[in-house]
Amino acid sequence: MVQTVKQFQVDKVDGGTILTPGGYQAGGFHSGLRYKKRDFGLLMSDVPASVAAVYTQSHFQAPPLKVTQESIEESGKIQSVVINSAVANACTGKQGLENAYQMRKMIADRFQIQESYVAVASTGVIGEQLPMDKITYGCEHVEITNEDAPYFQEAILTTDTCQKSTCYQLQIDGQTVTIGGAAKGSGMIHPNMATMLGFITTDAAIESDVLQKALSQSIERSFNQITVDGETSTNDMVLAMANGKAGHDTLTEDHSDWEAFRHGLQLVCEDLAKQIARDGEGATKLIEVNVSGAQTNDDARVIAKKVVGSSLVKTAVYGHDANWGRIVGAIGHSEAHVNPEACDIYIEDQLVFSDGTPCAFSEEQATEDMSNDKVVIEIRLHEGDGEGTAWGCDLTYDYVKINASYRT
Amino acid sequence: MVQTVKQFQVDKVDGGTILTPGGYQAGGFHSGLRYKKRDFGLLMSDVPASVAAVYTQSHFQAPPLKVTQESIEESGKIQSVVINSAVANACTGKQGLENAYQMRKMIADRFQIQESYVAVASTGVIGEQLPMDKITYGCEHVEITNEDAPYFQEAILTTDTCQKSTCYQLQIDGQTVTIGGAAKGSGMIHPNMATMLGFITTDAAIESDVLQKALSQSIERSFNQITVDGETSTNDMVLAMANGKAGHDTLTEDHSDWEAFRHGLQLVCEDLAKQIARDGEGATKLIEVNVSGAQTNDDARVIAKKVVGSSLVKTAVYGHDANWGRIVGAIGHSEAHVNPEACDIYIEDQLVFSDGTPCAFSEEQATEDMSNDKVVIEIRLHEGDGEGTAWGCDLTYDYVKINASYRT
Repeated sequence: MVQTVKQFQVDKVDGGTILTPGGYQAGGFHSGLRYKKRDFGLLMSDVPASVAAVYTQSHFQAPPLKVTQESIEESGKIQSVVINSAVANACTGKQGLENAYQMRKMIADRFQIQESYVAVASTGVIGEQLPMDKITYGCEHVEITNEDAPYFQEAILTTDTCQKSTCYQLQIDGQTVTIGGAAKGSGMIHPNMATMLGFITTDAAIESDVLQKALSQSIERSFNQITVDGETSTNDMVLAMANGKAGHDTLTEDHSDWEAFRHGLQLVCEDLAKQIARDGEGATKLIEVNVSGAQTNDDARVIAKKVVGSSLVKTAVYGHDANWGRIVGAIGHSEAHVNPEACDIYIEDQLVFSDGTPCAFSEEQATEDMSNDKVVIEIRLHEGDGEGTAWGCDLTYDYVKINASYRT
Repeated sequence: MVQTVKQFQVDKVDGGTILTPGGYQAGGFHSGLRYKKRDFGLLMSDVPASVAAVYTQSHFQAPPLKVTQESIEESGKIQSVVINSAVANACTGKQGLENAYQMRKMIADRFQIQESYVAVASTGVIGEQLPMDKITYGCEHVEITNEDAPYFQEAILTTDTCQKSTCYQLQIDGQTVTIGGAAKGSGMIHPNMATMLGFITTDAAIESDVLQKALSQSIERSFNQITVDGETSTNDMVLAMANGKAGHDTLTEDHSDWEAFRHGLQLVCEDLAKQIARDGEGATKLIEVNVSGAQTNDDARVIAKKVVGSSLVKTAVYGHDANWGRIVGAIGHSEAHVNPEACDIYIEDQLVFSDGTPCAFSEEQATEDMSNDKVVIEIRLHEGDGEGTAWGCDLTYDYVKINASYRT
């Protein structure tokens, strides 16, 4: 990865969340969908915000996503996101669609905003109808403040073992602009939006179509480059809101600070994506695969993702085994252009494969390197300038345990 | 799958092997590559045989495969296949290529046949040079008879837990023609030839180019439709020999018995492929996914393979969990055309999903069905006439155990 933080003066805000940007409130509480944990959340902007979103590419897209898309298409803005966990409202037919509309309406009525200013999201088991008594209770009683980001973050989790949030700041026209993010996702994480939700807030002033472009670009190099198990779900979405509270002139692609904003957004997406990969079901560590020297960036990304998604690479990393052969296997299997003789492979700092054959390296050092909670694999193809990175996690006994017993 | 056995009078030969067709000998013994197990094998036809082969599509194709391709290109026939297990002779550079040539030469010299009549195969760890003293010992001492198919079958195994063989017979011009097969493969099994070797012998009289066509077609619907873990290896090959010993007129595509032969070959490939899938690393059962009603056969095959390769479906089957949601997830994620509302899903005899929503079904019955050593998932898309089948296995603790500790 090219480290762009300094270049554009984008700074990480320690402890920052989706509520660090000006003009947002959020909350989460227990509405009764789960046994004990928080299960219902709400995110609200003081004013209608520009919006961008990317959705699952599953053929079986869930009703809440359809309603959200409709909201965004209708008004080009949103002000609020309502979400429940436990029940995904997917594969629920017409009743499911009506329930998602009902959720939207209840929030709109309570906060006296247009229905089309409300986005809806659900996550959890699929094929079950939402228990509308509990959803109604949630819509009527969820409280929002400008401090309760952790409650929101908790309410959106499913098999996740931890909350995921991040925040970056940058300058636009000399004004401080903040971008915060929250996400969930643990299993079924693969390209193009797997069981994963991401919410990004910013106080930047930017039109929805420009925000959409920046978000789509960022996602291509972040959320779409993580994989836990190669699966995609019915409910996934990343949604960004920009409420303009920072007060600078509306940002466009011609603006001198455009690249700073774009990179800030990229870093927020990347940070959340990595947190999701690290928290993959049963995972003990984050795997990062960097590919350089590919013919194109696309080729580099394809290879990086193939390697990080390989079951054999994942089990080898779990076993602290510097198994260059499985990396070779995964690269060899990709559709991207590769010259086997010109390919160098590093595990952390050690060159393990070069000139088409394995290199002498310290197994001891490798085992030690791979005992860390992050393992970096670097692949240099010497074919061109294409670069790409992907993130994943190891494959463990616990992944099998979690998934041999968890009903969708 | 369309059951074509009766239609074309193709009969399974119980206990039949690669030595059931007339004019073949084989053997396998311990040459010292492994600690104790047989590790060196030889297959020989009495006369030069027509030949067809399909190779791994990995960018890192191993030297023995290059030598085999060269043999076949040079003479269009082969008479012998020499193989060792334990060391794959992959990622071994120029030295590896010289060693593979040397193996070919030693067999040619000993049996006084052209070098280009010898095919070479290796399987095992990659990145290590062949110990040529032991290979030489193997080439000089391996014995062949017309009864020792099990020794050959054992010598080619790696992490396999059992030998794989099959045999079918049919009539051509009133003459009995036999097709036998042996295979190995357990992990790294995925499309387009994964760590998998298949050897097919027949006494049919057929030219190499016609045999190649029939083999390629058969593989598309058999070996290329199995997956254990989505991985592909450097050494995979399926090779078919036809020595003409059955004595009928040379078979062409215009021959009235052509379809019988083609289907016999298909059944041999399918049988071997299923045996490999069932013996996937750590597997407890075979999963078969049948897709019908797709827009095209290609679409059907893509979906079947996506479902059977899904980690979440595989873990659910391991847990005897009739988890239709994960099947929906995998279908939804495929690039093939799918109308979610028109898709019916069966687990064994029970309809579990229809009209875009789950159906009421007996969980008890489903759990019982899924306790068998074969589980059939059927998907009807109601979009067209496309059909396809794929085979795989469940994902278990043992898969992780085997692969967290086994060095390539």
